[in-house]
Amino acid sequence: MEALFPDSLIVRNQTKIVFLIVDGLGGLAMGGKGGSELQVARTPNLDALAAGSLCGLLEMVAPGVTPGSGPGHLALFGYDPVQRHIGRGVLSALGIDFPLRENDLAARVNFATLDEDGRVIDRRAGRISTERARELCQKVKSAVDLSPVEIFFEAEREHRAALILRGPNLEADLTDTDPQATGVSPRTCRATHPRAEGTAELINRFLQQTRHILSDAAPANMVLLRGFAQYEKYPSLEERYGLRAIAIAKYPMYRGLARLLGMTILEPYRDYADMLERLRSRLAEYDFFFLHIKEADSRGEDGDFEGKVRILEEIDGLTPALQDLRPEVLVVTGDHSTPSALRAHSWHPVPVLLHSPSARADGTPHFDEYHCARGGLGTRPAVELMSLALAHAGRLTKYGA
Amino acid sequence: MEALFPDSLIVRNQTKIVFLIVDGLGGLAMGGKGGSELQVARTPNLDALAAGSLCGLLEMVAPGVTPGSGPGHLALFGYDPVQRHIGRGVLSALGIDFPLRENDLAARVNFATLDEDGRVIDRRAGRISTERARELCQKVKSAVDLSPVEIFFEAEREHRAALILRGPNLEADLTDTDPQATGVSPRTCRATHPRAEGTAELINRFLQQTRHILSDAAPANMVLLRGFAQYEKYPSLEERYGLRAIAIAKYPMYRGLARLLGMTILEPYRDYADMLERLRSRLAEYDFFFLHIKEADSRGEDGDFEGKVRILEEIDGLTPALQDLRPEVLVVTGDHSTPSALRAHSWHPVPVLLHSPSARADGTPHFDEYHCARGGLGTRPAVELMSLALAHAGRLTKYGA
Repeated sequence: MEALFPDSLIVRNQTKIVFLIVDGLGGLAMGGKGGSELQVARTPNLDALAAGSLCGLLEMVAPGVTPGSGPGHLALFGYDPVQRHIGRGVLSALGIDFPLRENDLAARVNFATLDEDGRVIDRRAGRISTERARELCQKVKSAVDLSPVEIFFEAEREHRAALILRGPNLEADLTDTDPQATGVSPRTCRATHPRAEGTAELINRFLQQTRHILSDAAPANMVLLRGFAQYEKYPSLEERYGLRAIAIAKYPMYRGLARLLGMTILEPYRDYADMLERLRSRLAEYDFFFLHIKEADSRGEDGDFEGKVRILEEIDGLTPALQDLRPEVLVVTGDHSTPSALRAHSWHPVPVLLHSPSARADGTPHFDEYHCARGGLGTRPAVELMSLALAHAGRLTKYGA
Repeated sequence: MEALFPDSLIVRNQTKIVFLIVDGLGGLAMGGKGGSELQVARTPNLDALAAGSLCGLLEMVAPGVTPGSGPGHLALFGYDPVQRHIGRGVLSALGIDFPLRENDLAARVNFATLDEDGRVIDRRAGRISTERARELCQKVKSAVDLSPVEIFFEAEREHRAALILRGPNLEADLTDTDPQATGVSPRTCRATHPRAEGTAELINRFLQQTRHILSDAAPANMVLLRGFAQYEKYPSLEERYGLRAIAIAKYPMYRGLARLLGMTILEPYRDYADMLERLRSRLAEYDFFFLHIKEADSRGEDGDFEGKVRILEEIDGLTPALQDLRPEVLVVTGDHSTPSALRAHSWHPVPVLLHSPSARADGTPHFDEYHCARGGLGTRPAVELMSLALAHAGRLTKYGA
């Protein structure tokens, strides 16, 4: 599925490809609102852009499958999100912008509260503050000894953290220690494959030591681990497509994912104007620009229909500046839908427009789910988007004589 | 990808399937022209046909991939163009209508000019005439001795020719001798797999002898070889679909490709009237008719928008005669797009109409890229077309009870 074209078709040239990714872009009509968020939003610039573009809908992972942000973005960049599944632990480490190395073993961590019989009474340790979690991570990290294996233990938000082990012979075939329930003890880590037995033993030593170190830290007197995953290097956009790529994103998880794919990462931008300025100032240096806007997803998750509409209208105001830069290919789409009506990611396909001088403009009159469904691109797997972007940028040569 | 249905579904009957393949059919709107070539052309017959047909767009190889004519046609006939890749050497031999046999080894040839130090100074030997090339081919062929391996050395056009070796133990894992540059010597042919070492040695003997034979033939005093490929028999349309197939095509490359797929080949037709007459007179004898029209592609490659429009209007005049023959399935499509705006093949999907009494006519009001995008077939891989044609001709039985 992923090898959409033979590598030998790749051409390097000076063309520019800009992906403006509006997280959670797709929506759903909500009672009394007069349509979906995109249908209701006043987006004159996006509408004019859509009319001169190739429009459609993207299915991110598979029909009916609701994507997490990781799989959604992988698909947009042409990486099969199933074949290239990123384990939760690795995603968590990427999410805190931790510079993973090949074969690092990562797990998601919850601080939790155990009672005196060792049973879990709160899987979230009373949602301790991020600051307190940071202190405790530091305490554990400096006291635990697993040498020759190095440990990294980094707070994320509130009770969440990431554990990373680095060293020889680590394997990820391990069961979670998080029982996903209260009133029972944390589970012992077990190997699901004989090769991981040494690593399971190491994890259990870590837990024993941590239990001791945290004994006076209630409510955060224990940690629960899940989603063990090992970091494998992904082929970069440079390797796969000959693209010098840069990510202009604010949130760590997206910057981490971009780093995974070999993109240059900038410090988080301050506001949309700053995002555009960063794009402008790097335009000569790079070929591919990943611009990420988180807020549409956040409003959708909050069920804030009007808030999401406002964000979309704000984004509409950015598009003329993007067009002024005259990239050969400008794509506007999302990594998944987040309908305010559902307050969550959803499986609904995501509107997309591809603007390029060589695109067959389809006259789509309004940039929304309904009109994009009738666009020239049709509804298609998101993983095909990158091939189309490369083609419209003149970066794929002819196949066969 | 290729095995679209189990072989056991094939039914033989008396129905007729006609494919009218307009080379380079698809186009692109061009500034000031008022649309694409198909949008601008007056095509009342095709429009009426489209309204009573199932219309759509075909993606020939993969999204974003620009097909050569070989892969484009393979897909139309239901052969996966990637899995069934035809090497350049074989395509070149097919292009001069050379009757290849299984395991023949073919390469593309350029006559070239070497200076007295043996360095290439002109990769095209001053574009010698086809006639001169023919003389030199004859001279080389009669003087070279590689027995027991037979050699065939056939002029193509100007400085281009095809070399075919026939004999035991030939293998195609060979590097080009064409250095693709001037100021350097031709490369020695090397095996890229041990099994091809004997063949590499044979090629180098051929080159040594040829160098000697051409020593006084400057500017064509050497040959450069590339694209070594071995001819493997393809399963024929008869074998795969039970279709007795005939090609009514003018240009050698398309006749060669049709021969590769086991079609009967007629001598090149004189004009479109002659093409139709050949179809009419063979209608009883065959099941599947491949009609090939080259001129739309040629005009597109020339950037001649109005010329392509005129060809399309001329083709429009042919369709009533095709309908009068009442084939159970009449398909009009192309092997790739050749927009005049790009003066080249392109990745844009190709309009298609499938006319049949059993088709769900979709009322497409005009046969062009824009309206076909909204047709009942949608945008789909070209390799699926043959299954649909067979089904509408009543040539596929029910799958399962």
